[in-house]
Amino acid sequence: MVKIDPDRLIADLKWLRSFGATGPGVVRLSLSPVDLAAREWLAGRMNEAGLDARIDGVGTVFGRSRNSGPALVIGSHTDTQPTGGWLDGAMGVIYGLEIARALGENDATRHLAVDVASWIDEEGTFSGLLGSRSFVGEAVDATIRDATNRQGERLEDVLKAAGLADRPRARFEAGRQVAYLEPHIEQGGRLEALGKSIGVVTTIVGLRELKLRFTGQRNHAGTTPMAIRRDAGAALVAFIARMNDAFKALADADTVWTVGRIDLDPGAMSVVPGAADMYLQFRDANPVRLQAMEQALAGLVRDFNAQRTVGVELQSIDEPIEPVSMDATLAEHIARAAEAVAPGQWLHMPSGAAHDAQVIARCMPACMMFVPSIGGVSHDFIEDTAEAHIVLGCQVAATAAASMLLALAGR
Amino acid sequence: MVKIDPDRLIADLKWLRSFGATGPGVVRLSLSPVDLAAREWLAGRMNEAGLDARIDGVGTVFGRSRNSGPALVIGSHTDTQPTGGWLDGAMGVIYGLEIARALGENDATRHLAVDVASWIDEEGTFSGLLGSRSFVGEAVDATIRDATNRQGERLEDVLKAAGLADRPRARFEAGRQVAYLEPHIEQGGRLEALGKSIGVVTTIVGLRELKLRFTGQRNHAGTTPMAIRRDAGAALVAFIARMNDAFKALADADTVWTVGRIDLDPGAMSVVPGAADMYLQFRDANPVRLQAMEQALAGLVRDFNAQRTVGVELQSIDEPIEPVSMDATLAEHIARAAEAVAPGQWLHMPSGAAHDAQVIARCMPACMMFVPSIGGVSHDFIEDTAEAHIVLGCQVAATAAASMLLALAGR
Repeated sequence: MVKIDPDRLIADLKWLRSFGATGPGVVRLSLSPVDLAAREWLAGRMNEAGLDARIDGVGTVFGRSRNSGPALVIGSHTDTQPTGGWLDGAMGVIYGLEIARALGENDATRHLAVDVASWIDEEGTFSGLLGSRSFVGEAVDATIRDATNRQGERLEDVLKAAGLADRPRARFEAGRQVAYLEPHIEQGGRLEALGKSIGVVTTIVGLRELKLRFTGQRNHAGTTPMAIRRDAGAALVAFIARMNDAFKALADADTVWTVGRIDLDPGAMSVVPGAADMYLQFRDANPVRLQAMEQALAGLVRDFNAQRTVGVELQSIDEPIEPVSMDATLAEHIARAAEAVAPGQWLHMPSGAAHDAQVIARCMPACMMFVPSIGGVSHDFIEDTAEAHIVLGCQVAATAAASMLLALAGR
Repeated sequence: MVKIDPDRLIADLKWLRSFGATGPGVVRLSLSPVDLAAREWLAGRMNEAGLDARIDGVGTVFGRSRNSGPALVIGSHTDTQPTGGWLDGAMGVIYGLEIARALGENDATRHLAVDVASWIDEEGTFSGLLGSRSFVGEAVDATIRDATNRQGERLEDVLKAAGLADRPRARFEAGRQVAYLEPHIEQGGRLEALGKSIGVVTTIVGLRELKLRFTGQRNHAGTTPMAIRRDAGAALVAFIARMNDAFKALADADTVWTVGRIDLDPGAMSVVPGAADMYLQFRDANPVRLQAMEQALAGLVRDFNAQRTVGVELQSIDEPIEPVSMDATLAEHIARAAEAVAPGQWLHMPSGAAHDAQVIARCMPACMMFVPSIGGVSHDFIEDTAEAHIVLGCQVAATAAASMLLALAGR
């Protein structure tokens, strides 16, 4: 069986962490100076590993195997959230690097082709999932021209300043690249709660993001009797209670919905709010349930407008994101590898978070595996995973990768 | 009888409106650049009217009569809500200016002393009723040191930047200042509904202002199952429902409570809120009911902390404000003036809104009079009063002011 080198794996992860290290966490926003330095280092490590590696025209680091196909692409992202953890994305990329090395050091697998990718801007500093979207052939030129970061820097200018704008962009090679594997931290608490070490991902959930605007009548909070108020904030609160009941009736244990932001207008203690906005996100692995939740919400809005003196309007914030199923055959390779390396310590589960794998799945079979997040915490400096789990996860991924490639080569 | 000049009155009101005019409304938050400019203009107009006027160490514009006492103080405020109307406060201040001028132009009243005040920050951009509290001798140094506005600017820094910090503060002159009159728009719909033109105020209701902070656990909105969430925003919404039930059981028809502002932290669609703040205000004319509502709220907080995984903490935002009775003798002068100027067009009524008069009443007899608000609307850009009512109200106030001063001088 292919054996990874735990010391080399951890050393590379810690070296990558040093780019943007901030206390226990990392601040390495896409295409920032420290992110660009990390990409140069990563490309160098890939070349030392025998890959043909470069930073492409959007910033993705792509390390192409010098072996002929069929090739397995292993990837994730090395950019972070504004207050990011050290493993979110980074772990999957260094897994790919270590797996390419480990397969190259084993006579039974030396001939196999593993490409390794660090997709640019998964976290959306400029435009989420940009690297994988460019790789699968989505037209991203308009995005590159228009996208800006929070500081208002234009993506096009940043790519020019980094000397990347005129470089070729990594693109999917039909026929050669036949499968995609993305190892990642869970970013939730399920594996930890159940005492498991590996999650084999079945589906990446879909999501809806909506804004509900309530419109009443702004008035003085002392001189307007309760009986004649049209308080948009009070209406919003009443609506959420009804919505929770409706969603609970439709939900299963994996369905989630979140009101992440509420704005009352004008937001003063002495003023009855005349308008109120709530920002709602809900996610589920089942497209039928997502539609049912949308319909239930639309029904609540109709009823509310019919019954109340405060009106409510539903606005969609982003394009709906539909659930994406992972390839069952590839998932089976991961499950078998997990059972071989860590008997009984794995389970099937959906991914509640979005990942590049949902984009790559448009052009080739894709799969994902998770390792536990301590306390289920992510997108936070204190995000972490036990070193034993990091090492175990890489060994499972390496074993799965070898078995996928041997099966594919055997076709 | 003293005659006010309607054209001069309306012209000054419209000129003041031009500082911070926003559509039909006004945005003139305490000590903002536009508010400071308005105060400079107002002090100038007061000096032209023969008063000895200056902006004091907290920002109050005080115009002292050059006549010897006994003096009547006529005042209100020229700061506004974040989205304020053009007459809320401003009308009473310009009434004072016009009445000082009108009495000065009449041989029978030229010798009488009218001081005119625009008290700083009645609306509580930094700390509500600050100017009148400073005037009556309340210790406000700690408030000036600690208070901040919504942008986090410190009151102390803002006063320094405006060059006011080292100026003397206007203070009550015992013996000289013997009565206070505050004319104001009603900010409610009672006068309009009953077809009356003048309200003679009997009592100003008391109020409580509280902040409730809910503390849970921030987490990823996609990967954190509903069952293990500690969503501070969801807890806040559940708390409001319980609070509404408890308050309804205690309220009478004039009891009011308002959640004017809600902040979820961090306020992002993809993050389960880890903290949530709600700002609550409630008002009533009965001090016993106000205490009962406070006790009910404290009980809900205790129960909530005992039953939930999200904690809630109750914080007082401002000192409790108890109901305050207006001086009956001064009110009788207003009633007689109203009957003389507008026979049968006036009534006695409570004030559901807080006013500087309730603070000034600590050091001298105080009274208030109202003119109608169109549609009962205030704290809104569309707040307005018929010009005929504005002019009528000023004539009633001038007649009442002369009659108060002649009676006081006669003592």
